[in-house]
Amino acid sequence: MLKVEHIGIAVKSLDTSIPLFRRLLNSDCYKKEHVESESVQTAFFRQGETKIELLEATSPDSTIAKFVDKKGEGMHHIAFEVADIYAEMKRLTDEGFVLLQTEPKRGADNKLVCFLHPKGTNGLLVELCQEI
Amino acid sequence: MLKVEHIGIAVKSLDTSIPLFRRLLNSDCYKKEHVESESVQTAFFRQGETKIELLEATSPDSTIAKFVDKKGEGMHHIAFEVADIYAEMKRLTDEGFVLLQTEPKRGADNKLVCFLHPKGTNGLLVELCQEI
Repeated sequence: MLKVEHIGIAVKSLDTSIPLFRRLLNSDCYKKEHVESESVQTAFFRQGETKIELLEATSPDSTIAKFVDKKGEGMHHIAFEVADIYAEMKRLTDEGFVLLQTEPKRGADNKLVCFLHPKGTNGLLVELCQEI
Repeated sequence: MLKVEHIGIAVKSLDTSIPLFRRLLNSDCYKKEHVESESVQTAFFRQGETKIELLEATSPDSTIAKFVDKKGEGMHHIAFEVADIYAEMKRLTDEGFVLLQTEPKRGADNKLVCFLHPKGTNGLLVELCQEI
């Protein structure tokens, strides 16, 4: 794994949270993107080599809606950039980790992504991502 | 704010979690440190310019013990490196954020640190830190 590519934060409303994170981080949201496959609207901030990704559900069936209902707003996942997502998925499977996809899928921000099951990672939702 | 200095992850047992994160991140824990003031034992991994800090409570009164009891293991806080912690504390107070300390305190990894109240930050526990 190369670096922490982004930290995903579940929020109820981007309209509320974008100005809040602008004041908190003292930097502007530089991109918004709708990820239809995940039913989320995202908003990105930069902090050094890492992005802060705010996630608002666009449907009650979205995993983000369920997360906010159950746990409230807050940290949702950590995404690590990898050089070769297929090789990393194989390495982690061989190490005994459980992947939530058998094939990488298209995520936000022009990436191939794959999530690991949090039961195997100390409750942490881990995303692997590779720039397309 | 300069970068994501580290991501704090609450765990029940470093003896279990250090080998798990070694396999997950494919890198070795490079430092362990007992922070007596916080009643935690910490273990550090590097991922690019960001550290992953595992936190195990050394006392049932530790905030980490209470967090794990209430929410289970998982992401606990994000720490942002700042150039001047006093100036950043003033800026955030002026912006309406609530700080959990009026003065920076000594944290792990040779840092001055200050936490923000998560009620003002979308449920996110945010740490400011500055190398001493």
